Amino acid sequence: MLRLRNRRERRETGLFLVEGFREIRRALDAGVGIEEMWFCPELYLGTSEGEIVDRSAVAGAETIQASDAPFRRMAYRDRPEGLLAVCRQFDTSLGHISLGEPALVLVVESIEKPGNLGTMIRAAGAAGADAVVVADPTTDVFNPNVVRSSLGTCFLVPIAVAATDDAIGWLTSKGLRICVATPEADTNHWEAPMREPTALVVGSEQYGLSPAFIHATDIAVRIPMPGGVIDSLNAATSAAILLFEAVRQRLL
Amino acid sequence: MLRLRNRRERRETGLFLVEGFREIRRALDAGVGIEEMWFCPELYLGTSEGEIVDRSAVAGAETIQASDAPFRRMAYRDRPEGLLAVCRQFDTSLGHISLGEPALVLVVESIEKPGNLGTMIRAAGAAGADAVVVADPTTDVFNPNVVRSSLGTCFLVPIAVAATDDAIGWLTSKGLRICVATPEADTNHWEAPMREPTALVVGSEQYGLSPAFIHATDIAVRIPMPGGVIDSLNAATSAAILLFEAVRQRLL
Repeated sequence: MLRLRNRRERRETGLFLVEGFREIRRALDAGVGIEEMWFCPELYLGTSEGEIVDRSAVAGAETIQASDAPFRRMAYRDRPEGLLAVCRQFDTSLGHISLGEPALVLVVESIEKPGNLGTMIRAAGAAGADAVVVADPTTDVFNPNVVRSSLGTCFLVPIAVAATDDAIGWLTSKGLRICVATPEADTNHWEAPMREPTALVVGSEQYGLSPAFIHATDIAVRIPMPGGVIDSLNAATSAAILLFEAVRQRLL
Repeated sequence: MLRLRNRRERRETGLFLVEGFREIRRALDAGVGIEEMWFCPELYLGTSEGEIVDRSAVAGAETIQASDAPFRRMAYRDRPEGLLAVCRQFDTSLGHISLGEPALVLVVESIEKPGNLGTMIRAAGAAGADAVVVADPTTDVFNPNVVRSSLGTCFLVPIAVAATDDAIGWLTSKGLRICVATPEADTNHWEAPMREPTALVVGSEQYGLSPAFIHATDIAVRIPMPGGVIDSLNAATSAAILLFEAVRQRLL
Protein backbone atom coordinates (compact mmCIF):
# COMPACT_ATOMS: atom_id res chain seq x y z
CA MET A 1 0.00 0.00 0.00
CA LEU A 2 2.88 2.35 0.73
CA ARG A 3 3.76 2.02 -2.93
CA LEU A 4 0.64 4.01 -3.81
CA ARG A 5 2.50 7.11 -2.70
CA ASN A 6 4.35 6.62 -5.95
CA ARG A 7 2.74 8.08 -9.07
CA ARG A 8 3.70 5.22 -11.36
CA GLU A 9 2.27 2.69 -8.97
CA ARG A 10 -0.99 4.64 -8.89
CA ARG A 11 -1.14 4.76 -12.65
CA GLU A 12 -0.44 1.06 -13.04
CA THR A 13 -2.92 -0.11 -10.40
CA GLY A 14 -5.64 2.51 -10.94
CA LEU A 15 -5.76 2.92 -7.15
CA PHE A 16 -4.97 5.78 -4.77
CA LEU A 17 -4.89 6.53 -1.06
CA VAL A 18 -7.35 8.54 0.99
CA GLU A 19 -6.50 9.24 4.61
CA GLY A 20 -8.56 10.82 7.35
CA PHE A 21 -12.12 10.91 8.59
CA ARG A 22 -13.47 13.87 6.64
CA GLU A 23 -11.73 12.87 3.43
CA ILE A 24 -12.96 9.28 3.46
CA ARG A 25 -16.47 10.36 4.41
CA ARG A 26 -16.50 12.64 1.37
CA ALA A 27 -15.19 9.83 -0.83
CA LEU A 28 -18.05 7.63 0.40
CA ASP A 29 -20.58 10.42 -0.09
CA ALA A 30 -19.37 10.79 -3.67
CA GLY A 31 -19.55 7.08 -4.40
CA VAL A 32 -15.81 6.62 -4.87
CA GLY A 33 -15.00 2.90 -4.93
CA ILE A 34 -13.08 1.68 -1.86
CA GLU A 35 -11.05 -1.54 -2.09
CA GLU A 36 -9.49 -1.64 1.35
CA MET A 37 -10.33 0.20 4.53
CA TRP A 38 -7.53 0.12 7.10
CA PHE A 39 -8.52 1.23 10.57
CA CYS A 40 -6.85 1.65 13.92
CA PRO A 41 -9.28 2.43 16.76
CA GLU A 42 -6.44 3.44 19.11
CA LEU A 43 -5.87 6.48 16.90
CA TYR A 44 -9.48 7.63 16.50
CA LEU A 45 -10.02 11.29 17.43
CA GLY A 46 -13.81 11.20 17.55
CA THR A 47 -16.66 8.73 17.97
CA SER A 48 -17.92 8.38 14.38
CA GLU A 49 -14.94 6.63 12.83
CA GLY A 50 -16.57 3.24 13.28
CA GLU A 51 -19.47 4.36 11.08
CA ILE A 52 -17.04 5.16 8.30
CA VAL A 53 -15.58 1.66 8.54
CA ASP A 54 -19.09 0.18 8.48
CA ARG A 55 -20.12 2.28 5.50
CA SER A 56 -17.04 1.24 3.57
CA ALA A 57 -17.79 -2.43 4.30
CA VAL A 58 -21.32 -1.94 2.98
CA ALA A 59 -19.79 -0.32 -0.09
CA GLY A 60 -17.77 -3.48 -0.71
CA ALA A 61 -14.42 -2.67 0.89
CA GLU A 62 -12.29 -5.20 2.68
CA THR A 63 -11.87 -3.85 6.23
CA ILE A 64 -8.57 -4.51 7.98
CA GLN A 65 -7.72 -3.56 11.54
CA ALA A 66 -4.14 -2.52 12.29
CA SER A 67 -2.51 -1.67 15.58
CA ASP A 68 -0.86 1.64 16.36
CA ALA A 69 2.72 1.13 15.18
CA PRO A 70 2.04 -0.53 11.81
CA PHE A 71 -0.75 1.95 11.08
CA ARG A 72 1.56 4.87 11.72
CA ARG A 73 4.02 3.43 9.24
CA MET A 74 1.30 3.24 6.57
CA ALA A 75 -0.17 6.66 7.25
CA TYR A 76 1.28 9.67 5.43
CA ARG A 77 0.16 12.15 8.04
CA ASP A 78 2.12 13.12 11.11
CA ARG A 79 -0.95 12.76 13.27
CA PRO A 80 -2.95 9.91 11.73
CA GLU A 81 -6.64 9.68 12.54
CA GLY A 82 -6.81 5.90 12.30
CA LEU A 83 -8.52 5.68 8.90
CA LEU A 84 -6.79 4.96 5.61
CA ALA A 85 -8.56 3.81 2.46
CA VAL A 86 -7.30 2.33 -0.79
CA CYS A 87 -9.68 3.71 -3.40
CA ARG A 88 -10.29 3.20 -7.10
CA GLN A 89 -9.47 6.12 -9.37
CA PHE A 90 -12.54 7.62 -11.00
CA ASP A 91 -13.32 9.09 -14.40
CA THR A 92 -11.51 12.37 -15.01
CA SER A 93 -12.35 12.77 -18.68
CA LEU A 94 -13.89 15.99 -19.96
CA GLY A 95 -16.86 13.96 -21.16
CA HIS A 96 -18.24 13.38 -17.66
CA ILE A 97 -18.45 17.08 -16.79
CA SER A 98 -21.86 18.70 -16.86
CA LEU A 99 -22.22 22.45 -16.67
CA GLY A 100 -24.65 24.67 -14.81
CA GLU A 101 -26.23 27.84 -16.09
CA PRO A 102 -24.31 30.13 -16.32
CA ALA A 103 -21.29 27.84 -16.27
CA LEU A 104 -18.25 28.56 -14.13
CA VAL A 105 -15.13 26.46 -14.60
CA LEU A 106 -11.68 26.85 -13.09
CA VAL A 107 -8.88 25.81 -15.43
CA VAL A 108 -5.42 25.31 -13.98
CA GLU A 109 -2.49 24.73 -16.27
CA SER A 110 0.83 23.11 -15.35
CA ILE A 111 0.42 23.48 -11.62
CA GLU A 112 3.28 21.67 -9.94
CA LYS A 113 2.48 21.58 -6.25
CA PRO A 114 -0.19 19.09 -5.17
CA GLY A 115 -0.99 21.27 -2.16
CA ASN A 116 -1.75 24.20 -4.44
CA LEU A 117 -3.98 22.09 -6.66
CA GLY A 118 -5.90 20.81 -3.65
CA THR A 119 -6.38 24.33 -2.29
CA MET A 120 -7.72 25.45 -5.67
CA ILE A 121 -10.18 22.57 -5.81
CA ARG A 122 -11.40 23.52 -2.34
CA ALA A 123 -11.87 27.14 -3.36
CA ALA A 124 -13.65 26.12 -6.59
CA GLY A 125 -16.02 23.98 -4.54
CA ALA A 126 -16.76 26.83 -2.16
CA ALA A 127 -17.39 29.19 -5.07
CA GLY A 128 -19.82 26.74 -6.63
CA ALA A 129 -17.77 26.14 -9.78
CA ASP A 130 -19.09 23.37 -12.02
CA ALA A 131 -15.68 21.79 -12.48
CA VAL A 132 -11.94 22.11 -12.21
CA VAL A 133 -10.12 21.31 -15.43
CA VAL A 134 -6.49 20.38 -14.94
CA ALA A 135 -4.77 21.14 -18.25
CA ASP A 136 -1.37 19.77 -19.17
CA PRO A 137 -1.00 18.17 -15.78
CA THR A 138 2.37 17.99 -14.06
CA THR A 139 0.68 16.93 -10.84
CA ASP A 140 -1.30 13.73 -10.48
CA VAL A 141 -4.78 14.60 -9.23
CA PHE A 142 -4.71 11.36 -7.21
CA ASN A 143 -1.64 12.47 -5.28
CA PRO A 144 -2.32 12.09 -1.52
CA ASN A 145 -1.48 15.75 -0.97
CA VAL A 146 -4.16 16.86 -3.44
CA VAL A 147 -6.70 14.84 -1.48
CA ARG A 148 -5.39 16.21 1.78
CA SER A 149 -5.15 19.89 0.91
CA SER A 150 -8.59 19.77 -0.72
CA LEU A 151 -9.96 18.18 2.49
CA GLY A 152 -11.59 15.60 0.25
CA THR A 153 -13.53 18.20 -1.75
CA CYS A 154 -11.75 16.69 -4.78
CA PHE A 155 -14.47 14.01 -4.59
CA LEU A 156 -17.31 16.54 -4.65
CA VAL A 157 -16.11 19.01 -7.27
CA PRO A 158 -16.04 17.39 -10.72
CA ILE A 159 -12.47 17.24 -11.99
CA ALA A 160 -11.25 16.68 -15.53
CA VAL A 161 -7.68 16.15 -16.67
CA ALA A 162 -6.80 16.94 -20.28
CA ALA A 163 -4.08 18.12 -22.62
CA THR A 164 -4.20 21.89 -23.11
CA ASP A 165 -5.48 21.67 -26.70
CA ASP A 166 -8.25 19.31 -25.70
CA ALA A 167 -9.21 21.55 -22.80
CA ILE A 168 -9.39 24.61 -25.05
CA GLY A 169 -11.45 22.71 -27.63
CA TRP A 170 -13.89 21.57 -24.97
CA LEU A 171 -14.25 25.02 -23.37
CA THR A 172 -14.90 26.58 -26.78
CA SER A 173 -17.42 23.93 -27.77
CA LYS A 174 -19.31 24.61 -24.55
CA GLY A 175 -19.45 28.33 -25.27
CA LEU A 176 -17.40 29.40 -22.29
CA ARG A 177 -15.63 32.72 -22.37
CA ILE A 178 -11.94 32.13 -21.66
CA CYS A 179 -10.69 34.59 -19.06
CA VAL A 180 -6.99 34.22 -18.31
CA ALA A 181 -5.04 35.76 -15.47
CA THR A 182 -1.70 37.24 -16.44
CA PRO A 183 0.35 40.08 -14.95
CA GLU A 184 0.72 41.60 -18.44
CA ALA A 185 -3.01 42.31 -18.90
CA ASP A 186 -4.38 45.88 -18.87
CA THR A 187 -7.82 44.98 -17.51
CA ASN A 188 -8.31 44.67 -13.75
CA HIS A 189 -9.91 41.38 -12.82
CA TRP A 190 -13.14 42.94 -11.58
CA GLU A 191 -13.63 44.65 -14.94
CA ALA A 192 -14.11 41.32 -16.73
CA PRO A 193 -17.78 40.39 -17.04
CA MET A 194 -18.17 37.04 -15.31
CA ARG A 195 -21.93 36.61 -15.25
CA GLU A 196 -21.92 34.85 -18.58
CA PRO A 197 -20.49 31.30 -18.94
CA THR A 198 -16.86 31.68 -17.93
CA ALA A 199 -13.67 29.67 -17.69
CA LEU A 200 -11.12 31.23 -15.36
CA VAL A 201 -7.63 30.15 -16.34
CA VAL A 202 -4.61 30.25 -14.02
CA GLY A 203 -1.12 29.04 -14.89
CA SER A 204 1.92 28.15 -12.87
CA GLU A 205 3.65 30.88 -10.90
CA GLN A 206 6.94 30.02 -12.47
CA TYR A 207 6.10 29.63 -16.14
CA GLY A 208 2.75 31.33 -16.61
CA LEU A 209 0.38 30.09 -19.30
CA SER A 210 1.12 28.20 -22.48
CA PRO A 211 1.02 30.03 -25.84
CA ALA A 212 -2.04 27.91 -26.71
CA PHE A 213 -4.06 29.42 -23.85
CA ILE A 214 -2.76 32.91 -24.52
CA HIS A 215 -3.92 32.48 -28.12
CA ALA A 216 -7.35 31.18 -27.10
CA THR A 217 -7.96 34.02 -24.68
CA ASP A 218 -11.20 35.97 -24.85
CA ILE A 219 -10.23 38.36 -22.09
CA ALA A 220 -7.00 38.71 -20.15
CA VAL A 221 -7.10 40.17 -16.66
CA ARG A 222 -4.55 41.06 -14.08
CA ILE A 223 -4.97 41.12 -10.34
CA PRO A 224 -3.54 44.54 -9.48
CA MET A 225 -0.94 44.45 -6.72
CA PRO A 226 -0.52 47.88 -5.15
CA GLY A 227 2.09 46.41 -2.83
CA GLY A 228 4.55 46.19 -5.65
CA VAL A 229 7.18 44.44 -3.58
CA ILE A 230 5.97 41.01 -4.67
CA ASP A 231 6.75 39.16 -7.90
CA SER A 232 3.44 37.35 -7.96
CA LEU A 233 0.68 35.84 -5.90
CA ASN A 234 0.57 32.16 -5.12
CA ALA A 235 -1.34 30.48 -7.99
CA ALA A 236 -3.97 29.13 -5.61
CA THR A 237 -4.48 32.60 -4.16
CA SER A 238 -4.95 34.07 -7.64
CA ALA A 239 -7.48 31.38 -8.49
CA ALA A 240 -9.49 32.09 -5.34
CA ILE A 241 -9.53 35.85 -5.96
CA LEU A 242 -10.89 35.30 -9.48
CA LEU A 243 -13.44 32.69 -8.40
CA PHE A 244 -14.85 34.93 -5.69
CA GLU A 245 -14.96 37.91 -8.02
CA ALA A 246 -17.23 35.74 -10.16
CA VAL A 247 -19.28 34.95 -7.06
CA ARG A 248 -19.56 38.67 -6.29
CA GLN A 249 -20.69 39.59 -9.78
CA ARG A 250 -23.22 36.78 -9.91
CA LEU A 251 -24.76 37.58 -6.52
CA LEU A 252 -24.89 41.35 -7.03
CA MET B 1 22.30 25.39 13.56
CA LEU B 2 19.85 22.56 13.07
CA ARG B 3 18.55 23.35 16.52
CA LEU B 4 17.09 26.60 15.17
CA ARG B 5 14.34 24.53 13.62
CA ASN B 6 13.15 24.26 17.20
CA ARG B 7 10.98 27.10 18.47
CA ARG B 8 12.44 27.16 21.96
CA GLU B 9 15.94 27.32 20.57
CA ARG B 10 14.91 30.28 18.39
CA ARG B 11 13.38 32.05 21.36
CA GLU B 12 16.42 31.51 23.58
CA THR B 13 18.99 32.57 21.01
CA GLY B 14 17.01 35.29 19.24
CA LEU B 15 18.13 33.77 15.94
CA PHE B 16 16.33 32.10 13.04
CA LEU B 17 17.06 30.44 9.71
CA VAL B 18 16.55 31.81 6.22
CA GLU B 19 17.16 29.51 3.30
CA GLY B 20 17.22 30.20 -0.44
CA PHE B 21 18.37 32.88 -2.83
CA ARG B 22 15.22 34.98 -3.06
CA GLU B 23 14.52 34.79 0.66
CA ILE B 24 18.03 35.82 1.74
CA ARG B 25 18.15 38.59 -0.84
CA ARG B 26 14.92 39.98 0.61
CA ALA B 27 16.32 39.70 4.13
CA LEU B 28 19.38 41.69 3.03
CA ASP B 29 17.20 44.24 1.22
CA ALA B 30 15.22 44.70 4.42
CA GLY B 31 18.32 45.09 6.59
CA VAL B 32 17.75 41.92 8.61
CA GLY B 33 20.90 41.12 10.60
CA ILE B 34 22.80 38.05 9.38
CA GLU B 35 25.17 36.27 11.77
CA GLU B 36 26.28 33.38 9.61
CA MET B 37 26.03 32.78 5.88
CA TRP B 38 26.54 29.15 4.90
CA PHE B 39 27.07 28.58 1.21
CA CYS B 40 27.68 25.62 -1.07
CA PRO B 41 28.59 26.61 -4.65
CA GLU B 42 27.99 23.05 -5.91
CA LEU B 43 24.28 23.55 -5.23
CA TYR B 44 23.85 27.00 -6.78
CA LEU B 45 21.05 27.15 -9.35
CA GLY B 46 21.96 30.52 -10.87
CA THR B 47 24.91 32.85 -11.20
CA SER B 48 24.08 35.53 -8.62
CA GLU B 49 24.44 33.48 -5.45
CA GLY B 50 28.02 34.70 -4.95
CA GLU B 51 26.76 38.29 -4.76
CA ILE B 52 24.45 37.32 -1.91
CA VAL B 53 27.38 35.83 -0.01
CA ASP B 54 29.43 38.98 -0.65
CA ARG B 55 26.58 41.24 0.45
CA SER B 56 26.13 39.28 3.64
CA ALA B 57 29.86 39.56 4.38
CA VAL B 58 29.65 43.32 3.91
CA ALA B 59 26.67 43.30 6.27
CA GLY B 60 28.85 41.66 8.92
CA ALA B 61 28.05 37.98 8.54
CA GLU B 62 30.59 35.24 9.03
CA THR B 63 30.66 33.35 5.71
CA ILE B 64 31.26 29.62 5.82
CA GLN B 65 31.59 27.32 2.84
CA ALA B 66 30.22 23.80 3.13
CA SER B 67 30.39 20.90 0.72
CA ASP B 68 27.38 19.17 -0.75
CA ALA B 69 26.64 16.44 1.79
CA PRO B 70 26.95 18.46 5.02
CA PHE B 71 25.04 21.36 3.44
CA ARG B 72 22.17 19.06 2.52
CA ARG B 73 21.99 17.89 6.10
CA MET B 74 21.68 21.47 7.31
CA ALA B 75 19.18 22.57 4.70
CA TYR B 76 15.49 22.10 5.42
CA ARG B 77 14.48 22.04 1.76
CA ASP B 78 14.40 18.97 -0.43
CA ARG B 79 16.19 20.82 -3.20
CA PRO B 80 18.57 23.21 -1.43
CA GLU B 81 19.88 26.19 -3.39
CA GLY B 82 23.21 26.38 -1.60
CA LEU B 83 22.43 29.38 0.60
CA LEU B 84 21.45 29.22 4.26
CA ALA B 85 21.61 32.16 6.66
CA VAL B 86 21.43 32.40 10.43
CA CYS B 87 19.67 35.72 11.03
CA ARG B 88 18.83 37.85 14.03
CA GLN B 89 15.16 38.16 14.90
CA PHE B 90 13.83 41.67 14.41
CA ASP B 91 11.38 43.87 16.25
CA THR B 92 7.81 42.59 15.98
CA SER B 93 6.21 44.94 18.47
CA LEU B 94 3.15 46.95 17.51
CA GLY B 95 5.12 50.11 18.25
CA HIS B 96 7.28 49.83 15.14
CA ILE B 97 4.33 49.71 12.72
CA SER B 98 3.56 52.87 10.77
CA LEU B 99 0.34 53.16 8.82
CA GLY B 100 -0.44 54.60 5.41
CA GLU B 101 -3.46 56.64 4.47
CA PRO B 102 -6.01 55.06 4.37
CA ALA B 103 -4.53 52.28 6.48
CA LEU B 104 -5.00 48.62 5.59
CA VAL B 105 -3.95 45.97 8.09
CA LEU B 106 -4.43 42.22 8.00
CA VAL B 107 -4.98 40.70 11.43
CA VAL B 108 -4.70 36.94 11.80
CA GLU B 109 -5.68 35.29 15.03
CA SER B 110 -4.55 31.86 16.27
CA ILE B 111 -3.35 30.62 12.90
CA GLU B 112 -1.66 27.27 13.42
CA LYS B 113 0.01 26.39 10.16
CA PRO B 114 3.23 28.27 9.36
CA GLY B 115 2.59 27.72 5.64
CA ASN B 116 -0.77 29.46 5.92
CA LEU B 117 0.74 32.38 7.79
CA GLY B 118 3.45 32.78 5.17
CA THR B 119 0.91 32.70 2.34
CA MET B 120 -1.12 35.41 4.09
CA ILE B 121 1.92 37.62 4.52
CA ARG B 122 2.66 37.24 0.82
CA ALA B 123 -0.90 38.18 -0.12
CA ALA B 124 -0.85 41.15 2.27
CA GLY B 125 2.35 42.35 0.63
CA ALA B 126 0.86 42.04 -2.84
CA ALA B 127 -2.26 43.92 -1.73
CA GLY B 128 -0.16 46.73 -0.32
CA ALA B 129 -1.26 46.26 3.27
CA ASP B 130 0.65 48.36 5.80
CA ALA B 131 1.18 45.46 8.17
CA VAL B 132 0.20 41.97 9.26
CA VAL B 133 -0.69 41.72 12.93
CA VAL B 134 -0.43 38.21 14.34
CA ALA B 135 -2.72 38.13 17.34
CA ASP B 136 -2.55 35.44 19.98
CA PRO B 137 0.12 33.57 18.08
CA THR B 138 0.24 29.80 18.05
CA THR B 139 2.78 29.91 15.24
CA ASP B 140 6.21 31.47 15.61
CA VAL B 141 6.64 34.07 12.87
CA PHE B 142 10.31 33.06 12.67
CA ASN B 143 9.43 29.47 11.79
CA PRO B 144 11.36 28.45 8.64
CA ASN B 145 8.10 27.54 6.90
CA VAL B 146 6.71 31.04 7.40
CA VAL B 147 9.82 32.44 5.73
CA ARG B 148 9.57 29.88 2.96
CA SER B 149 5.88 30.12 2.11
CA SER B 150 6.06 33.91 2.21
CA LEU B 151 9.02 33.72 -0.23
CA GLY B 152 10.81 36.10 2.11
CA THR B 153 8.11 38.77 1.86
CA CYS B 154 7.93 38.46 5.66
CA PHE B 155 10.98 40.77 5.63
CA LEU B 156 9.27 43.39 3.49
CA VAL B 157 5.78 43.51 5.00
CA PRO B 158 5.88 44.91 8.54
CA ILE B 159 4.79 42.25 11.01
CA ALA B 160 3.67 42.67 14.59
CA VAL B 161 2.96 39.96 17.13
CA ALA B 162 0.68 40.75 20.06
CA ALA B 163 -1.84 39.35 22.49
CA THR B 164 -5.38 39.74 21.19
CA ASP B 165 -6.31 42.45 23.72
CA ASP B 166 -3.23 44.46 22.88
CA ALA B 167 -3.91 44.11 19.17
CA ILE B 168 -7.49 45.33 19.60
CA GLY B 169 -6.36 48.25 21.73
CA TRP B 170 -3.80 49.27 19.14
CA LEU B 171 -6.22 48.98 16.20
CA THR B 172 -8.77 51.07 18.04
CA SER B 173 -6.25 53.71 19.05
CA LYS B 174 -5.23 54.03 15.39
CA GLY B 175 -8.83 54.57 14.30
CA LEU B 176 -9.07 51.43 12.19
CA ARG B 177 -12.46 49.96 11.48
CA ILE B 178 -12.42 46.31 12.57
CA CYS B 179 -13.89 44.11 9.85
CA VAL B 180 -14.04 40.45 10.82
CA ALA B 181 -14.74 37.48 8.60
CA THR B 182 -17.17 34.94 10.00
CA PRO B 183 -19.59 32.52 8.33
CA GLU B 184 -22.36 33.74 10.65
CA ALA B 185 -22.40 37.30 9.29
CA ASP B 186 -25.30 38.61 7.18
CA THR B 187 -23.26 41.08 5.16
CA ASN B 188 -21.42 39.90 2.05
CA HIS B 189 -17.76 40.85 2.11
CA TRP B 190 -18.00 43.27 -0.82
CA GLU B 191 -20.73 45.22 0.98
CA ALA B 192 -18.34 46.33 3.72
CA PRO B 193 -16.86 49.74 2.98
CA MET B 194 -13.09 49.25 2.89
CA ARG B 195 -11.91 52.61 1.57
CA GLU B 196 -11.59 53.99 5.06
CA PRO B 197 -8.83 52.80 7.45
CA THR B 198 -9.55 49.11 7.86
CA ALA B 199 -8.31 46.09 9.77
CA LEU B 200 -9.35 42.81 8.14
CA VAL B 201 -9.50 40.06 10.75
CA VAL B 202 -9.32 36.35 9.98
CA GLY B 203 -9.30 33.57 12.56
CA SER B 204 -8.35 29.93 12.46
CA GLU B 205 -10.42 27.57 10.33
CA GLN B 206 -10.92 25.28 13.24
CA TYR B 207 -11.81 27.63 16.06
CA GLY B 208 -12.82 30.89 14.43
CA LEU B 209 -12.26 34.17 16.23
CA SER B 210 -11.94 34.83 19.93
CA PRO B 211 -14.84 36.43 21.83
CA ALA B 212 -12.63 39.49 22.30
CA PHE B 213 -12.47 40.11 18.55
CA ILE B 214 -16.14 39.32 18.07
CA HIS B 215 -16.89 41.91 20.74
CA ALA B 216 -14.61 44.52 19.18
CA THR B 217 -16.12 44.09 15.71
CA ASP B 218 -17.26 47.15 13.77
CA ILE B 219 -18.56 45.12 10.85
CA ALA B 220 -18.81 41.36 10.36
CA VAL B 221 -18.75 39.97 6.85
CA ARG B 222 -19.09 36.56 5.32
CA ILE B 223 -17.62 35.31 2.10
CA PRO B 224 -20.65 33.73 0.48
CA MET B 225 -20.06 30.18 -0.74
CA PRO B 226 -22.61 29.19 -3.35
CA GLY B 227 -20.94 25.79 -3.60
CA GLY B 228 -22.36 24.83 -0.26
CA VAL B 229 -20.51 21.52 -0.13
CA ILE B 230 -17.60 23.02 1.73
CA ASP B 231 -17.32 23.68 5.43
CA SER B 232 -15.04 26.65 5.00
CA LEU B 233 -12.33 28.20 2.95
CA ASN B 234 -8.70 27.86 3.90
CA ALA B 235 -7.88 30.79 6.23
CA ALA B 236 -5.20 32.08 3.87
CA THR B 237 -7.66 32.00 0.98
CA SER B 238 -10.22 33.97 2.98
CA ALA B 239 -7.60 36.56 3.88
CA ALA B 240 -6.61 37.00 0.24
CA ILE B 241 -10.21 37.40 -0.91
CA LEU B 242 -10.79 40.14 1.67
CA LEU B 243 -7.49 41.91 0.96
CA PHE B 244 -8.18 42.05 -2.77
CA GLU B 245 -11.73 43.22 -2.21
CA ALA B 246 -10.13 46.14 -0.39
CA VAL B 247 -7.80 46.63 -3.37
CA ARG B 248 -10.80 46.62 -5.72
CA GLN B 249 -12.73 49.19 -3.71
CA ARG B 250 -9.71 51.45 -3.34
CA LEU B 251 -8.82 51.38 -7.05
CA LEU B 252 -12.39 51.82 -8.33
